[in-house]
Amino acid sequence: MHIEVVTIGDELLLGFTIDTNGAHLARELAQVGVMVARRTSVGDGAEEIASAVGDALDRTGAVITTGGLGPTSDDLTKPAIAALFGRALHEDASVVEALRRRWKERGWAGELPVSNLQQAQVPDGAVVLANGHGSAPGIWLEDARGRWVAMLPGVPREMRGMCADQLLPRIRARLAGTPTVVRSLTVRTTGISESALSDRIRALAGLDVEGLTLAYLPGWEGVDLRLTARGLAPDDADARLAHAAGPLRGAAGDHVYGAGNDDLAAIVLAGLRTAGLHIAVAESCTGGMLGARLTAIPGSSNAVLGGIIAYHDDVKVTQLGVRVATLEAHGAVSEETAREMATGVRVRLGASVGVAITGVAGPDGGTPDKPVGTVCFAADVDGTVRSVRASLVGDRHEVRQRSAQAALNLVRRMLAALS
Amino acid sequence: MHIEVVTIGDELLLGFTIDTNGAHLARELAQVGVMVARRTSVGDGAEEIASAVGDALDRTGAVITTGGLGPTSDDLTKPAIAALFGRALHEDASVVEALRRRWKERGWAGELPVSNLQQAQVPDGAVVLANGHGSAPGIWLEDARGRWVAMLPGVPREMRGMCADQLLPRIRARLAGTPTVVRSLTVRTTGISESALSDRIRALAGLDVEGLTLAYLPGWEGVDLRLTARGLAPDDADARLAHAAGPLRGAAGDHVYGAGNDDLAAIVLAGLRTAGLHIAVAESCTGGMLGARLTAIPGSSNAVLGGIIAYHDDVKVTQLGVRVATLEAHGAVSEETAREMATGVRVRLGASVGVAITGVAGPDGGTPDKPVGTVCFAADVDGTVRSVRASLVGDRHEVRQRSAQAALNLVRRMLAALS
Repeated sequence: MHIEVVTIGDELLLGFTIDTNGAHLARELAQVGVMVARRTSVGDGAEEIASAVGDALDRTGAVITTGGLGPTSDDLTKPAIAALFGRALHEDASVVEALRRRWKERGWAGELPVSNLQQAQVPDGAVVLANGHGSAPGIWLEDARGRWVAMLPGVPREMRGMCADQLLPRIRARLAGTPTVVRSLTVRTTGISESALSDRIRALAGLDVEGLTLAYLPGWEGVDLRLTARGLAPDDADARLAHAAGPLRGAAGDHVYGAGNDDLAAIVLAGLRTAGLHIAVAESCTGGMLGARLTAIPGSSNAVLGGIIAYHDDVKVTQLGVRVATLEAHGAVSEETAREMATGVRVRLGASVGVAITGVAGPDGGTPDKPVGTVCFAADVDGTVRSVRASLVGDRHEVRQRSAQAALNLVRRMLAALS
Repeated sequence: MHIEVVTIGDELLLGFTIDTNGAHLARELAQVGVMVARRTSVGDGAEEIASAVGDALDRTGAVITTGGLGPTSDDLTKPAIAALFGRALHEDASVVEALRRRWKERGWAGELPVSNLQQAQVPDGAVVLANGHGSAPGIWLEDARGRWVAMLPGVPREMRGMCADQLLPRIRARLAGTPTVVRSLTVRTTGISESALSDRIRALAGLDVEGLTLAYLPGWEGVDLRLTARGLAPDDADARLAHAAGPLRGAAGDHVYGAGNDDLAAIVLAGLRTAGLHIAVAESCTGGMLGARLTAIPGSSNAVLGGIIAYHDDVKVTQLGVRVATLEAHGAVSEETAREMATGVRVRLGASVGVAITGVAGPDGGTPDKPVGTVCFAADVDGTVRSVRASLVGDRHEVRQRSAQAALNLVRRMLAALS
């Protein structure tokens, strides 16, 4: 089964909103073996919507839209697609009732705003998809030939909930008995370039990727290697992926830190828990990003104590115990300062692991000796201290992201050496 | 002028990569008055690429692609589009030379990898677009009827650089003398729902949006109101936008915190600088996100000292001086604890402003009294302390994002009251 996704909203064409909905749908559909054949983004205009959805229906007969179901005048998805199917709109009493109930349950003041009633307009013959996470219901519209459009709201949280509750069960039911699947497998690497990885992999004598495609996906986390099997029986797809993955991992060696969607922060947390250790962070140029990454993971409180954001050098001295002599001799961006920060935060917060970052994120502050992108890292694991100096590429945001990733990787390697 | 954007890569259809390139191009093109008419994402296959680019050329005659120019076997953009134009590929000596020079300048070991030479394949009659930020050059290909495709690499940093250096100057040159533009204006609000805003705006008697469209864009930062003028002369567009913006701002009242792309963190930093104040943060459930937002802004070091990530309660006591009696009487998630955290971090780091966040981000940890999403904030400005308790919606990530935003908003309002 192939599906097309059409995301709707002027804000997508103006670039003020990043299209995370399209990516989420693609990921969820791939899990149930459905390939997104094409993704399209169009503006809020009724004609544009009808044109893009009509083209997609002609190509695949199965379309998911997001956006344009809200309570305001720029929300035209339902009338545009109803017209495409030759259907009129009517006000659905059960939707009006659900909107009123939700308004009351939330304890919001006054009556349901009139604008919200637009959300109760439903094309004749459509199925209403209940929205357990917001006010705009979704719509499933199908013609006599079995061609269908599922309309979901554009607010990502609502769209994700409805995808799980309403959309995927319907698609799974249609797929029952389909013999082939789309499966993929990702090997995550960090600290090696795309070209160098490619050369290592080309040199592999035994790599068999028949029936598979191999993609290199570089980003600030590193380079992901993604193998994809399409149009194969499930067992065959899994066997070929497993057969090819081993040599790929071997080629990338200790640059491999995980698989699939693994987050390096989650892997470090798991390593800390296994070893019974607690971590504290000391951050200068990243200003809290490393702490934020570690605490983004539910349940991180059993391995993360907290940290010190030592953005100003005074804070490095007063809160972390970095010596003024060290700052004067080596500068704030130095392995020496990073080591004192790591040990300082470990001791002061009573942790077993301290990890520190200090660097020049840019755009200003670079010097000939320490250009923008120069970042020093240190980790202190129960008194054993390691430090690294790196030259990271990218703008300020990317240097900071790469810094947090490299600090986590240093801790990962030290934990691996313990076990 | 209308342009279509085609982003290329299996990873976009599998949803493992969010399409930030399409959004960036749309934003940059809107700045020069060009409207993106449609965005399409297709996989790495040559047929898919040719089909999507061919359709887009038929509709608008002007297409920008990203992705598929790399050194690996899944990079088929150039051969697919060359075939669409009926052109052969040749190895371009100047590109080979540039690749070899870049390899040497970087001090990388050995010879240029063979895989990199694929990047020197250029369609006959094409213009090579130099890549100052990476190895894959871009391509500008045009037919006898003036229809063109600009191919840019998929790595966001390289794509952004080439968009500025190579693409926009060419498009500006083509636009010289075009009489109409696309202009937009955004009013940023926070702390008010989309429906409530819509009702306030519908009630405005004097709002004149003739020739304009008004979009409501809700997100974790708040709800943006975007007015867009299309197909008008520049002066007319600007005048209508300015005329409509005043009443919109009035309707949203003190929920307005900025305009355009304004970031609340940057606005708070500017307020601190104006008042000659320095800030320190104390974070529990956000784990460093607030510090990361403030320090994301270049030059933040003149107003941000740092902070304490007090994820574990012991750290709240030892590093921030929160009283054990307060934690026992009111709990870690309480306005009382938040107030002691704010004052503690202000005093210990020697700042003039302390701001604190403590809450239940979920998915676990909620209680009947303090369900997931309960977050307490406090700010201490030179000894004057204000605190707020809020119920925030969304998953763990969104609750944390909304928490950092609400904490910044508390500081913004206190700074505004000072002046």
